Formats: sequence, C-alpha cells, structure tokens
Amino acid sequence: MVRRKSIGQLAKKKRLRVCGLMSGTSVDGIDTAIADISDSSAKIVAFNTFPYPAKVREAIFDIFQKQAVQINDFCHLNFVIGEVFADAVHKLCKNKNVPIDSIDLIGSHGQTIFHNPKGTKFGTKLIRSTLQIGEPSVIAHRTGITTIADFRPKDMAANGQGAPLVPYADHFLFRDNKKCRTIQNIGGIANLTYLPANCTLKDVIAFDTGPGNMVMDFLVSHMTNGKQKYDKNGKLAANGIVDKKLLNELLKNPYFKRKPPKTTGREEFGNNFTVKFLQKALKRKISNEDIIATACALTAQSIELAYRQYLPKLPDEMILCGGGYLNKTLVNMLQENLSEVKILTTDDFGINPDAKEALSFAILAYAAIKSRPNNVPGATGAEKELILGKIIPA
Amino acid sequence: MVRRKSIGQLAKKKRLRVCGLMSGTSVDGIDTAIADISDSSAKIVAFNTFPYPAKVREAIFDIFQKQAVQINDFCHLNFVIGEVFADAVHKLCKNKNVPIDSIDLIGSHGQTIFHNPKGTKFGTKLIRSTLQIGEPSVIAHRTGITTIADFRPKDMAANGQGAPLVPYADHFLFRDNKKCRTIQNIGGIANLTYLPANCTLKDVIAFDTGPGNMVMDFLVSHMTNGKQKYDKNGKLAANGIVDKKLLNELLKNPYFKRKPPKTTGREEFGNNFTVKFLQKALKRKISNEDIIATACALTAQSIELAYRQYLPKLPDEMILCGGGYLNKTLVNMLQENLSEVKILTTDDFGINPDAKEALSFAILAYAAIKSRPNNVPGATGAEKELILGKIIPA
Repeated sequence: MVRRKSIGQLAKKKRLRVCGLMSGTSVDGIDTAIADISDSSAKIVAFNTFPYPAKVREAIFDIFQKQAVQINDFCHLNFVIGEVFADAVHKLCKNKNVPIDSIDLIGSHGQTIFHNPKGTKFGTKLIRSTLQIGEPSVIAHRTGITTIADFRPKDMAANGQGAPLVPYADHFLFRDNKKCRTIQNIGGIANLTYLPANCTLKDVIAFDTGPGNMVMDFLVSHMTNGKQKYDKNGKLAANGIVDKKLLNELLKNPYFKRKPPKTTGREEFGNNFTVKFLQKALKRKISNEDIIATACALTAQSIELAYRQYLPKLPDEMILCGGGYLNKTLVNMLQENLSEVKILTTDDFGINPDAKEALSFAILAYAAIKSRPNNVPGATGAEKELILGKIIPA
Repeated sequence: MVRRKSIGQLAKKKRLRVCGLMSGTSVDGIDTAIADISDSSAKIVAFNTFPYPAKVREAIFDIFQKQAVQINDFCHLNFVIGEVFADAVHKLCKNKNVPIDSIDLIGSHGQTIFHNPKGTKFGTKLIRSTLQIGEPSVIAHRTGITTIADFRPKDMAANGQGAPLVPYADHFLFRDNKKCRTIQNIGGIANLTYLPANCTLKDVIAFDTGPGNMVMDFLVSHMTNGKQKYDKNGKLAANGIVDKKLLNELLKNPYFKRKPPKTTGREEFGNNFTVKFLQKALKRKISNEDIIATACALTAQSIELAYRQYLPKLPDEMILCGGGYLNKTLVNMLQENLSEVKILTTDDFGINPDAKEALSFAILAYAAIKSRPNNVPGATGAEKELILGKIIPA
C-alpha cells in the first residue's frame, strides 16, 4: 500500500478525491459516490448502490423491530457493517476502474440505529442522542484511506436536532450569486433547502414540507396487492381527477400550519394517516386513479403552501432530487402550482439525483478535513456553527 | 469561549497541555489527569478521580450483568457518560485552578462495555470487536477542546487484540538510553512492559504476568465478611507464612507456561480460581494470614517466573505502579525474588502511580494529533503500526 497522506497534508490539498458512503433507514443498500471536490466544485467520478448482505440487513431490521440488542451481537454488527462499507469502496473502485489509492478521504454517514432529537432528561439536563453504526476505524484500515464519520452527535451535543445535514452540501453545490434556488427533495418525506441569491450558511433555510412519495407509495402498493410499489412515471395519477374537497380536508393537517424549522416522518404521514385518507376516499366512491391523483396533489400542494407561506420569497429555480422527480404528474402539478418557478433536477447540474445524498457526506468530510464548520444551525437548530465528524487517520 | 486551535495548529505546537480521561472495568470513577507533554517529557499538572453519579454506575453494571440493552437507553447512556467525562475536566480545572482554555487536547479512553479480542466469524472473516462509550463529541463540545477517543477499534481492525495500549506511553515515559527497565503494573491482574536500553517501539514486549491483587483482594474480603477490601500495606500477609506446597501447586496453572504475548483476566484468576485455592488451603488447615501470604507469594513468584522465563534478560530497574505497589509485603517478596533488579515506583519519576493510566491516554492523544503511530504491535498483535484514535475537532 502506498504511503498515505497525513491529515495535515490532506487539509492543504486543493482538490481532494472523496468517497461518500450513505445508507438510509430503508436499509436498501450502501450508496457509494466518489467525487473530485475543490472549494469551487464537486464532480462525481463514480457512483453505485451496493446491497447489504442479507444477514446484515436482517440483523439491522431485527434491532429496528425489537429496539433491543445483545451487546456482543451489537458490537459485532458495528464492525461487520464497517467491513461492508469498506467492501463497497473497493467494489466501486474495481467496477469503475478508479484506483483506490487515488481516493484521499472517505465521508461515511453510517447506518442509523436510533435518533432521539427531542432528548431525554438526565437530572435537569435534556440529553439529545443518536446512534449511527458501521465502525469507521474498520473502513479506514481496510481501505487505507482517512475516514470521517459520525457527523450527527456533535450537532446534538450543541442542542441541535442532528438533522438535516444535507443543506450544507446543497449550499456548497447549488448556491448562486444571482439566482435564488430551492433544492426540493421528494423522498418518502419531502424537504427543501432554500438558498437566497449569494447566500451564506446563515441565510439557508431547510425544513420538511410534508409527505413526499410515502402516501402515494402506500396507496399504490395497497391497491395492487403489493404488485406495484409506486406510481411509475405518475401514470396512475395522470388518469385520475383530483378530489378537491378531500384534498382540502387533508391539507388541514396541523403539520402544514407549523412554522419551520420542522421535521416530520412516518409518525405523521405513515400508515395511520394513509388508512384514514383511504377510508374517506372510499366513502366518496372515487376511483383508484382519483385517489392516487389526490395523494399526488397533496404532495404538490403542500409543497406549494410551504413555498408561499414560509419562504421569504419564491425561488427563481426549484431543483428536484429524490425518487419523486421521476413522477411526471407530480412534476406537472408542481409546475402548475408554482408557475413562477423554473423546475429543474440535479441532473441539469451534472449530479445524479440518486447519488446526491452520498455526495453530500463526501462534501461534509471535505469541509471537516479543512477545519471548516459543516452544519447549518438554521436547519438543525444547533446553538452554533460546528465542525461535525470524527476523523480517523488512515 | 476563546477561539480554539485547529487540528493543524495543534499538530505543530511543540508543547501541548493534554487531559487524559480513563475509567476501568471496575467503574470506580473517572481518572482525570492534566499534563504538559512535549516530545521529550510529560509532566502531570493536576490529577483526580471523580466518582460516577450513582445512576450512571448502576446503568453500566446493569449492562455488564444483562449483556443486553434497550437501544434508547444505551444511546442515552453514551451521551450521558460524555457529559460526565466533560464534567470531570471542568471539575479538575476548577479544583486545581487550571484554566480550561489552557488545555489543548483531550485523550479519552471511554468506558469499556464489551471487548471481543478473539473475534467472531462473519462468513469466512474473523471479526474482532470492542465497544467503549462516553460520546467524545459531547466532551469536545462541552469543553471546547479537541478530543481524541476510541483508541482500541483500529488496532482490532488490524487483527490486534486492541490491548494493551499503555506500553506506548510506558515507552514514551520510561525508555532509557542505557538502562533496561520494566514497568510492572499490579492492578487486579499484573502486567509488564519491557523496555530494553535505547529501545524503539519495535523492541517493546508487554504481557500479563498473571494475578495481581485480584486473588488477595477476594480472599481478604471473604475472610473479613467484606469489612476489608484489601490487605492494607500487606499487613496480613506479613503475619503469615507462605505454604510452599500449596504455592507450587498454584504455580502449575497453565497460564504461567503460555508464551507471551498473552493476556488474562477474571475468567482465569477470578472467583472460580480463588474459591478452589481457598478450599485447598482450608484442607491444609493453615491460618488466614498464611493464606494471604501464600496468595501474595503467588503474585510475586508468577512475576519472577515471567521475568526469568520470558524476558530476553532481566531489567536493571523494575518500576511499579497500580495498587500493588502499596503492599509492602509484596514489594519485599519481589525484591527478594528478583534481587538483581532495582525496584522503584513511578513516583520516583514524578508520576503519581494512580494517574499513570489516565496520563497514558493523554500521551496516546498527543501522538495521534501529531500523526504518529501510537500502538505497539509487539504488545497487541496488530499487523502494523497504526495511528489509533478518532479526532473530534473542538
């Protein structure tokens, strides 16, 4: 193995090749993105998602379900996931002919096992806590690459929510001197990062707008008995008519009236919400397509509401990422609702929307190695700007 | 708070004030040592041990006993222990009038919850794993001091045992150009670090010699119905006569015949071993004082055996630390058994023997921030020299 650069040498290097590693709560696989990053740009060199070995995925879901662990199993799993993450780096390098020695740095999010942003009291102190696993010492040693991991804990030590962390990368990638932009991610939940023209990190606003694909996906899966997991290209919604009365009722959900910063999840727009929605729709005897169209409009209209109510002004451009950007009906609705805004996707900026989250952790690592704060207090609620991440020298 | 130094600036600073934090498996408290460290010396500025809050200590023992945790409790405890460690730094600074802003760096061992040096298979790979808690992001944020923690995992990623780590500090503190020395720690288990004259890290030998105070402490506690926890100053042993037949039988334990590197613990010299010892002694109808004297001789003679069998040559000096150095009978026996060796304590070098372990983690952190390897492969079995520790910038 070649002699690796010290962290001091890495800090001084103007362009770093950084590998970002991310696995979300759906445990679909390890998003692995290699990018060349400098102060002025980030260019993706290679990207892929590698599935977890079945046993590891089962072990993670077992923890989600039981919310308890045997200490020996847990300790073992932390190191095993480190091996799996390191394997992902090796595989991507091999498949895409990227010499592993050309990578300067790894930024690893890890696998979230627990996240308690509201905190639990210890005596009079409110202690926020979070837990991401996938031992970064293993990643650093197996790859020979300095690794930065565990970005969330310090934001929470500073009374932040430890999330969202991606707005820092959005600011890095998409801020513009003249244009005001939003990055609109439409995953299970939809969230935005608002970047006024020529903004600093202090000007960045970020929050969850409400449901993204979660409600639609549940309904499609239910209606097709699990044969279809989602409304491909928005075809079902395109053949339906939005039930405006029902839609207006759904939009009365108190989440839409809460001022940002705010976050939401399954507890608000998961199965309970969707089953009630379905019951109401069935009473109104509308077709399956109408139901999907209405769910689609719920996402589009709650995004519109957020933009009109909670942003200082409408952006010039909305840049889409997350699975929702592939739903043509949704994108059409958004364009209709926010006709003043030009709608683009991250693809228009050379960034694969699927790779954006892994790339974001590469960008957070790039900042950390250069001793630059990489949280957005306006988004997480942290009491100050901080350098997030633990640095493990190769 | 003053503007903190970046890790690059810390790396360049010639003398660093470093705080070492250590809590052992007995969970007695947090050893906290502040020292001024340069390449040529380490001087302790302040030291104290702070007890855990009772609830936290109970929660740790609860994990030891059940070997299982609720994930939310565990995640909370990790952050709470981070707060307790940070409090220890603040308290020591306040009690000893050390300005907290004068501290450049913290080295935190954490609280070991699990350690699996033999490893568990995952497919065909043997995965060694370990778990120390006490969230270092919390320590870094609450103190405003760059913190290095979690030293063991990378040594284990490199097929090491993740222990012992103290020999690196022993080499730093006690190597001598002309004299051959051992650092003889007598805690529950006794272990040595062997430093030939003018040695490099590659020449260092370190291993557990066998029982330290563990057997004696158990017997004293048993005989006094828990009123006495240990043989103060070796007074009981001084009034007894060593039962040589029984001693020779005890010395047949296979551990003493295993070649180093080797480690041992409660599984070999804990309650089971000691109860059997006691049963044999009672059959031989010897007095309580004779039993303690024999246990004391077991420690002294197993140390002698290790020195005569497994060291390339006897050291010029043996430097004692750990609680056993206060047992005068034990020290006398050692001096008698190894009359060629001059016996000293770390106190003779200006280092409080109780502070040495916490100081060791300050020294490991000092090395890590300067990008220097800080493990001793000859002691841990790791495949190469490594920079251990995760760096959390303030």
